[in-house]
Amino acid sequence: MSGNVIACQGTEGAYSQLAAKKLFPDGSFLYFRNFEAVATAVREDLCEFGVLPIENNTYGSVRDVYRILARQEVSIVRGCRLQIRHQLLANPGAVMSGIRKVYSHEQGLGQCAKFLHTLGDKVSLVPCLNTAVAARMVAESGDMEAAAISSPECADLYGLTVLKRGIADSDHNYTRFLCIAKESCVLPGADRISLIFTLPHRPGALACVLGKFADADMNLLKLESAPIPGRDFEFLFYADVEGSVNDPAVSAILEEIRGMCPDYRFLGNYHEI
Amino acid sequence: MSGNVIACQGTEGAYSQLAAKKLFPDGSFLYFRNFEAVATAVREDLCEFGVLPIENNTYGSVRDVYRILARQEVSIVRGCRLQIRHQLLANPGAVMSGIRKVYSHEQGLGQCAKFLHTLGDKVSLVPCLNTAVAARMVAESGDMEAAAISSPECADLYGLTVLKRGIADSDHNYTRFLCIAKESCVLPGADRISLIFTLPHRPGALACVLGKFADADMNLLKLESAPIPGRDFEFLFYADVEGSVNDPAVSAILEEIRGMCPDYRFLGNYHEI
Repeated sequence: MSGNVIACQGTEGAYSQLAAKKLFPDGSFLYFRNFEAVATAVREDLCEFGVLPIENNTYGSVRDVYRILARQEVSIVRGCRLQIRHQLLANPGAVMSGIRKVYSHEQGLGQCAKFLHTLGDKVSLVPCLNTAVAARMVAESGDMEAAAISSPECADLYGLTVLKRGIADSDHNYTRFLCIAKESCVLPGADRISLIFTLPHRPGALACVLGKFADADMNLLKLESAPIPGRDFEFLFYADVEGSVNDPAVSAILEEIRGMCPDYRFLGNYHEI
Repeated sequence: MSGNVIACQGTEGAYSQLAAKKLFPDGSFLYFRNFEAVATAVREDLCEFGVLPIENNTYGSVRDVYRILARQEVSIVRGCRLQIRHQLLANPGAVMSGIRKVYSHEQGLGQCAKFLHTLGDKVSLVPCLNTAVAARMVAESGDMEAAAISSPECADLYGLTVLKRGIADSDHNYTRFLCIAKESCVLPGADRISLIFTLPHRPGALACVLGKFADADMNLLKLESAPIPGRDFEFLFYADVEGSVNDPAVSAILEEIRGMCPDYRFLGNYHEI
């Protein structure tokens, strides 16, 4: 995919844009205030594609994005998994022993808690809207006592230097992103199917749906229940299963499941890079 | 429960403490920097009980807390559900038309997006560590142009007045909290069982576990898969089911399931208020 205009949430250099760049190396990017605006830009043909985060291995699913996918008429056409590599960035000439303020998104601060602890009590932490905003704030301030926890790409983007790499508590920190389009489209190699459904009020209803997938050897890649707003003891399920709707056995199983569920939405069939 | 010392994360007036107060109206509260420190305080007998958030109906599970429960030797003994009622607080004498800065936790800002939109572009948003910190910052600044999105309790606590109630996009905003203790203990009325388990690599393994619950008429209250850090295509499952371990049929089913799962941890059997 190339030459497309891609809708992203946030700021240049934020992880959403890094994911969009991984999916569309030659794309141009338009930035929107929130996830809803990204989906609206795609639905109203302002952008051909949009990129949205759907799950972080530490923080879980982005339920706001699921809600948008359930409601807006857009389809998932690709996915990507981005490793989050936090680094400590500062203005050129700054030294580690002089740092007194660390800016980052709250999750960035949380994910580097052990490293931040080694800096001692003299350092204050400043939560920002995202990690790219943190880097920009440090750059614009020119403050030699300030540093940002941000992506390596933001060092180049905002003229900062890397004070320390690999500062996250865990190496296994990644976020899954989805690429959405207005029209449903199954690209070659699509092997992941995303669904949202509700179940009838019957013990064993979920076991029955999962049994269908198992009978067809469709591996379950993700399953999550989420309360339905305003209905206290009812749940939506988000499920990802392996398979291609071009396989008649798979589409027959999906049709069967659609028939079993009071609400059912096929979000897309796509490949994750 | 009364007269106990309860460990909470955060600050007086933050939602964690409101939940602790709902669970222990006569308790004294000790505040800790993070969730891990709350669990450690309980495990090391510094506090008899601890209170931790486990799930928000909008933002999903607090996976950090699940990780702590899986690792630390503590048990869930009670639960509570707290409705989040955001209000706009300001210094006495401030008026709505004069507000230029709104402080809150990022989730508070996100949950009141529609209301904030009505204030127009002249208002800037300032993310804070939690909603109680936001209220305190407004109070300490004495700034008549500043307001905080926070709980009604923080108005009293920090001497602020309520500029506007009911500013959240949705009324259905609640967080579930857990009360943990060092020793496992099943209090009268316990009807919710929380488990963490992994499954053998066999299609249908989950359907089989859920089938056991269904056969015993144990309703599934929550189910979620979460990737295991460092093992790319393996999952943990978090499950809540209805039942009491004092019922021999229930404990027999749990024993059966324990036998089927490579990893299995019983987190507790408790009642949620």
